[in-house]
Amino acid sequence: MKEMLYEGKAKKIFLTDNENEVIVYYKDDATAFNGEKKGTIDEKGIMNNQITTILFEYLAAHGVKTHYIKTLSDREQLVKKVEIIPLEVIVRNVAAGSFSKRLGVPEGTELNTTIFEICYKNDALGDPLINDSHAVAIGLATFEELKEIYGITATINDLLKEFFQKIGLILVDFKIEFGKDAQGNILLADEISPDTCRLWDAVTREKMDKDRFRRNLDNVKGAYEEVINRMKKG
Amino acid sequence: MKEMLYEGKAKKIFLTDNENEVIVYYKDDATAFNGEKKGTIDEKGIMNNQITTILFEYLAAHGVKTHYIKTLSDREQLVKKVEIIPLEVIVRNVAAGSFSKRLGVPEGTELNTTIFEICYKNDALGDPLINDSHAVAIGLATFEELKEIYGITATINDLLKEFFQKIGLILVDFKIEFGKDAQGNILLADEISPDTCRLWDAVTREKMDKDRFRRNLDNVKGAYEEVINRMKKG
Ligand SMILES: Nc1ncnc2c1ncn2[C@@H]1O[C@H](COP(=O)(O)OP(=O)(O)O)[C@@H](O)[C@H]1O
Ligand SMILES: Nc1ncnc2c1ncn2[C@@H]1O[C@H](COP(=O)(O)OP(=O)(O)O)[C@@H](O)[C@H]1O
Ligand SMILES: [Mg+2]
Ligand SMILES: [Mg+2]
Repeated sequence: MKEMLYEGKAKKIFLTDNENEVIVYYKDDATAFNGEKKGTIDEKGIMNNQITTILFEYLAAHGVKTHYIKTLSDREQLVKKVEIIPLEVIVRNVAAGSFSKRLGVPEGTELNTTIFEICYKNDALGDPLINDSHAVAIGLATFEELKEIYGITATINDLLKEFFQKIGLILVDFKIEFGKDAQGNILLADEISPDTCRLWDAVTREKMDKDRFRRNLDNVKGAYEEVINRMKKG
Repeated sequence: MKEMLYEGKAKKIFLTDNENEVIVYYKDDATAFNGEKKGTIDEKGIMNNQITTILFEYLAAHGVKTHYIKTLSDREQLVKKVEIIPLEVIVRNVAAGSFSKRLGVPEGTELNTTIFEICYKNDALGDPLINDSHAVAIGLATFEELKEIYGITATINDLLKEFFQKIGLILVDFKIEFGKDAQGNILLADEISPDTCRLWDAVTREKMDKDRFRRNLDNVKGAYEEVINRMKKG
């Protein structure tokens, strides 16, 4: 096995013989509330690898530049090594989660406009919500980079909403990460999966994502499986 | 005495015979940490009335549209009645306060760019930090109104920084509020005082504002008096 570069909460990153490429290994570990709640979801790593693979291939086919190169095994992807921009970029199409809690807006409320938010990816600080001037003031990104990131993010939201809508799922919200490759290009990195999206069944509004784990609902694994099954059929 | 429209933490608002005008009455009450810490600062109301009067007259003389009409007594101002936009608009020229705490940036750190932030003015929610898309999504303002507000706020920051610099004070940060008058104009409202600004002595960097109260430092009243004295001389 190659040298491990980093072990995160849900994935491990391994070096390869090519200094511009790394391997992402998907674990079954699940955490919530900034690591306070810990557990595992049986075969989550295998499922999220499959889901991310399908979504990154779909986005790439529609012109989004991503770190994804190819899938190596049931838990491993080869990706371009990037320097992660320490921002969690969040899109909200429907009120839920921390937004609902902080602003007193009931989950499921339709919004006057799509919400784009950024959090400072910093576990010790609890990934605090920030705005563009905060990000620039503390050197996380430039205004130009943020503008580019929001543009790509809006495109990704449009593509993903359509993708999930076709398979009977509402894309309530999601979190993505961006990084810079060796040439300085901004690429979509990390993963897109039920760990990082809220997906509700369009008819029953049942939660089909990590909220089942966060809120101690039953059939967590079944929800991930259902998402994959619909993606493969759809 | 006229009918009281609203009693806030630091001021009372009274109706007048003119439906487009209200009286602001400045109290000595001081609160901090979203009302958790309560106290009084002797003669604060009188001092903040004077300070706000000087600053609003100065801003108006430089083209900023404000609610201020005239000062009626040592604790009272006559102002245009506005519908307050429920946002606390904050400018940060130097790191301090909640920004330093949330983002782990030591107080006094110079910033790569001026920070503009908005909080949802809502005591029950603890005045949470939001961004523009949040404000629009929950109907607090439109994108056009926010753009106008940021423009006026940048002008106010430039004017106030210069004003305080001339009297040996660093304008570290401040909070302002805006409202809409009967014609729909966006006016600077509320107050600007050591309750709502952080002011540091340019030489000693001593705190000359409500942080003396928040942090249980001595000579709270003396700091407000020193600010007035410099303003009157300057
Ligand atoms: N292409 C990439 N190159 C380098 N690092 C990456 C890449 N894609 C994702 N990462 C980072 O690898 C880590 C993935 O592991 P994860 O378990 O998600 O970590 P975390 O607990 O920090 O969220 C994340 O920190 C993510 O930012
Ligand atoms: N011109 C105005 N017309 C109407 N309300 C105003 C005007 N200027 C300020 N206000 C509001 O009056 C209140 C002033 O009292 P204050 O003690 O500051 O209240 P709070 O505890 O809500 O901050 C604030 O809620 C402020 O938004
Ligand atoms: Mg992660
Ligand atoms: Mg107030």
